[in-house]
Amino acid sequence: MDVTRENFYTILPNLKRALSDAEFITIDFEFTGLTSGGRDLEPMPFDTPRQYYEKLHQKALDFLPLQLGLCIFQYDASENKYTYQAYNFFIFPFSKLKGFPNSTFLCQSSSVAFLSSCGFDFNKAFGAGIPFLTQPEEDKLKLSIKDRQQKIVRENQKDSFDVSVPEDLKIVFQSNMKKIKEFLEDTSEKKADSFILDRCNRFMRRLLYQEVPKEFGDTVYLETCDDSDMTMMIMRGGGEEFKKLREEEKKKNEWKEFEEAVGLSHLIKAIAESGKLIVAHNCLLDICHLVHRFRYPLPPNYDEFKEIVHHIFPRIIDTKFMAFEQQFKDLISAGSLGQLLDTVSTAPFEMPKIEGNVEGHSYNNLVDKSHEGGYDAFITGQCFLAMSQYLAKDQGIKFSNIGSIKEILSQIENRLYLMKIQDIRYLLLGGPDVKPPRNHVFHLRFPREWKQYDIVELFKPYGPVFISFIDERSAYVALHKRDQAKFVMKSLTGNDFYKLTSFGAYQKQIERKSPPLAQPASPSLDLVRKRKLRDSTDGASASPDVFKKHRSLDQPKRSIDPIPEETEVDNIGSSDHTSTENQSLAPKEFAESEVWG
Amino acid sequence: MDVTRENFYTILPNLKRALSDAEFITIDFEFTGLTSGGRDLEPMPFDTPRQYYEKLHQKALDFLPLQLGLCIFQYDASENKYTYQAYNFFIFPFSKLKGFPNSTFLCQSSSVAFLSSCGFDFNKAFGAGIPFLTQPEEDKLKLSIKDRQQKIVRENQKDSFDVSVPEDLKIVFQSNMKKIKEFLEDTSEKKADSFILDRCNRFMRRLLYQEVPKEFGDTVYLETCDDSDMTMMIMRGGGEEFKKLREEEKKKNEWKEFEEAVGLSHLIKAIAESGKLIVAHNCLLDICHLVHRFRYPLPPNYDEFKEIVHHIFPRIIDTKFMAFEQQFKDLISAGSLGQLLDTVSTAPFEMPKIEGNVEGHSYNNLVDKSHEGGYDAFITGQCFLAMSQYLAKDQGIKFSNIGSIKEILSQIENRLYLMKIQDIRYLLLGGPDVKPPRNHVFHLRFPREWKQYDIVELFKPYGPVFISFIDERSAYVALHKRDQAKFVMKSLTGNDFYKLTSFGAYQKQIERKSPPLAQPASPSLDLVRKRKLRDSTDGASASPDVFKKHRSLDQPKRSIDPIPEETEVDNIGSSDHTSTENQSLAPKEFAESEVWG
Repeated sequence: MDVTRENFYTILPNLKRALSDAEFITIDFEFTGLTSGGRDLEPMPFDTPRQYYEKLHQKALDFLPLQLGLCIFQYDASENKYTYQAYNFFIFPFSKLKGFPNSTFLCQSSSVAFLSSCGFDFNKAFGAGIPFLTQPEEDKLKLSIKDRQQKIVRENQKDSFDVSVPEDLKIVFQSNMKKIKEFLEDTSEKKADSFILDRCNRFMRRLLYQEVPKEFGDTVYLETCDDSDMTMMIMRGGGEEFKKLREEEKKKNEWKEFEEAVGLSHLIKAIAESGKLIVAHNCLLDICHLVHRFRYPLPPNYDEFKEIVHHIFPRIIDTKFMAFEQQFKDLISAGSLGQLLDTVSTAPFEMPKIEGNVEGHSYNNLVDKSHEGGYDAFITGQCFLAMSQYLAKDQGIKFSNIGSIKEILSQIENRLYLMKIQDIRYLLLGGPDVKPPRNHVFHLRFPREWKQYDIVELFKPYGPVFISFIDERSAYVALHKRDQAKFVMKSLTGNDFYKLTSFGAYQKQIERKSPPLAQPASPSLDLVRKRKLRDSTDGASASPDVFKKHRSLDQPKRSIDPIPEETEVDNIGSSDHTSTENQSLAPKEFAESEVWG
Repeated sequence: MDVTRENFYTILPNLKRALSDAEFITIDFEFTGLTSGGRDLEPMPFDTPRQYYEKLHQKALDFLPLQLGLCIFQYDASENKYTYQAYNFFIFPFSKLKGFPNSTFLCQSSSVAFLSSCGFDFNKAFGAGIPFLTQPEEDKLKLSIKDRQQKIVRENQKDSFDVSVPEDLKIVFQSNMKKIKEFLEDTSEKKADSFILDRCNRFMRRLLYQEVPKEFGDTVYLETCDDSDMTMMIMRGGGEEFKKLREEEKKKNEWKEFEEAVGLSHLIKAIAESGKLIVAHNCLLDICHLVHRFRYPLPPNYDEFKEIVHHIFPRIIDTKFMAFEQQFKDLISAGSLGQLLDTVSTAPFEMPKIEGNVEGHSYNNLVDKSHEGGYDAFITGQCFLAMSQYLAKDQGIKFSNIGSIKEILSQIENRLYLMKIQDIRYLLLGGPDVKPPRNHVFHLRFPREWKQYDIVELFKPYGPVFISFIDERSAYVALHKRDQAKFVMKSLTGNDFYKLTSFGAYQKQIERKSPPLAQPASPSLDLVRKRKLRDSTDGASASPDVFKKHRSLDQPKRSIDPIPEETEVDNIGSSDHTSTENQSLAPKEFAESEVWG
């Protein structure tokens, strides 16, 4: 079940085959951290999706995924059942191959401690994790290997002019020559084929490449080792033929190491090229890392981010968003993935038949392995299938497999759940986001001395308010009675102590301060667009319908006015509000630090 | 030998006792990373110590120590031998105690992979690492616990006005009351003393605190649990007496948890207060973290950094610096700690008698445990003792213990080795740094197209040069023949392509761009100064002579002109230079990327 760099390359061909037979796949990452902890980078109840992403980009992408859980689901029509195979890929961005990027990454102590308490094996990840590269990193590494191989060839060739052995290197140089002589003169049975000469800096290497052939002719072959210890390998045998063979062998090994260094990115590329439906739970961060770490680094620009992700992974379903569908309103209460599985495992839900089809790659639901990537991916698939079957039944469609409810699912696809935002439940890849009216929301600037009580007092004439503090001198204030909004701006005109701005006007102020980047598109977007163009021309890798089914962001954009059915989310959770004369509570999903006054 | 939070608190008293009997201690950290990888934050051959520290502060302090190796050396005069005990403290900044900072930290993949290849047990560090806090964090946490305990008392007291149970909470509220009733009515043998009621948000808690006493009187006691799951504990028994006892018990537990959360900082405080000599190898980063993570966060200002460190740890010896002493010139060649041990283990060095004195806390030199903190600390101590004994012999002093060569060592104390700087070997705590003449060094700005060859050509009339590239458009260029310096500025006046500035003038330009901070001293310095003042007034914690022996930085500063014996370091490694007509090599210590043209 666990896959490390010890066994990954052996099973990769099987994985690719399983993928091509899959109906959908589920994924789940385990990260070294999730949020920055800094208040200014936390999602807030009145963020826009753009602001939400910008915060995520600033910090959350610096954490590292250490495990990818992948579950491949295939539909077996003959027996009307699903089969699956689950994998835990331990991953770590390290390879001994020269030129492999030495990356730094962030950890959050609480996340690391949490993973540790779940039994996560960090030693396995750090010691045997499969490496990975983005496409630009892969291209750069490939180029640097080519360059280096040419350079080594040049270094091995004698320089056009000889240098003399400097006085203070003479002893070391002569000692080296003596070692080589003794090695070559050893004709015993136990004689070695090669030996390592250490402490050879560049100048010493040049001297040896120059002097050794003069002294020993074709009986010996020298090679610079690719390590930082400045060593040379001295081998028996020489001459042009030997040299050529040896160099070919080295090159071949290096390219093998290169393929291994691309590591898990081979698989993620195959997933992208397959165009298969990807299902994951509460997966914005997972999808971001799937692109950012394995395909193309994500730019800070929100529109570019949406275009890049949608181009690479055109079909995604977030089961956290799915669980909020209207049909589940009275059946599913918000909660964790484990709680969702509990809910959909009992009536009125029915679980389709799901069986492991590769030995050692299945789970037993009786053993809770929460927060093991492969297990979480597996139960995400279970939840997805049970909810899908219910949606079919609800609409009077006979459910056989996911393919049979394509139309229903197309309404759910590419909507990634947004946590903590008051009135926007998702961001939409391949389309404009919802933009619920926020006429009842105000930005308030107030003196440092003010407490929550003072704000409540200020707004008392207009009923209860929801306060979302931005910092110690400003907050968003939302009216519970929306119809009072028109009176607020008229009466609370501000004074020396406080300043009130409508939500819309405040957003414009922010935008003026940091206007959307007018600069040329990010390198990632350029590359993704070029690749798309190439693929659509030669029809090589991506399946032909991958990009057609979804509106391309290259086409003129739809106006981003709210569309009717989407503005309904404005009322999310409003039934959870608890109002008393003096007190209202935030929807139960929100952290208690957000206070209704 | 390994110490985790499972056994640390048990052995802490013994550790403190051993410390008070120690002659010196040695330390060594294992880190999640060392350098940023970014070229602009790497130390460069012509950095000043100030610039060196500023770079270190910008990035290297964000990595985390995961293990502290500590070796406590005691001198046994009766048998004229040293005894030692070595410890590996696994550390990790996490505690479940509410309010404990949830910190983020950096890792470098190569460092993590390296530790992993040495067998470092990350699972142990992350799962059972001893927590730690700086003094300000400890103070803040203490305050927040006090606040919270008072707040809980207040929350437990009935509010002055009753709230009514809102319509949409009625079902949940009544279900909760029913659960409490059933719990209280259970009189069976197996009845529980308490049970947990979950999903109680703040408003539900308020309702229960208000309604439960009305309904059940003194037969029941409610308590808000300190976790994020919004749960309450319902206990049998009530009344004022029970309540008081219960609250006392909770408080006591919380303060116990607090002491545990201070964790390793208890030990580091004891080390600081002992004023004992600290010995470590190549230890600038170790000493920085010793202060920054366990005592006071280090400020970016170099002078403040020096003052803070010197106040807290007034006696440090860096064996890497010690190995460069004039007496060892022909005996010790630069290298790793392991290589140093090899060297000092053979004649003319003699190793004093060193024996482990606590079972399970000693090492066998035959088993190489390099990069296990405790082992590296132990062999640092061996190297220190062997080098000390040689220095004594060299000066005709009979060596018994470290105390017998105090005078000699005072010339070595508080000099922390600086890697990669061309002509400055150390920074001095408690005094001004050396400032070797750099009249032969120039700052050159050149066109992006220029290669190393072009610079060599430009300076050809003045002999070979050492080039240290700053970026792709600038470099420091040092003349091999220093006497040529006076001609350079006269003849190479610059043109449209390049601009030449003397080293001194260039430093002044940089300083003008970012002048030394004129702002008030950092909070850490303030706190350290206050603590010093308090200690010197009440003579409480620090041993009385700790601060007297060394010049306080509060006193007027010495001019920072070079003093004669210190400018000698200007010639470090110059005997290693290899000059040929066309080629000179950098001192063997420097990375090969620094090129002599």
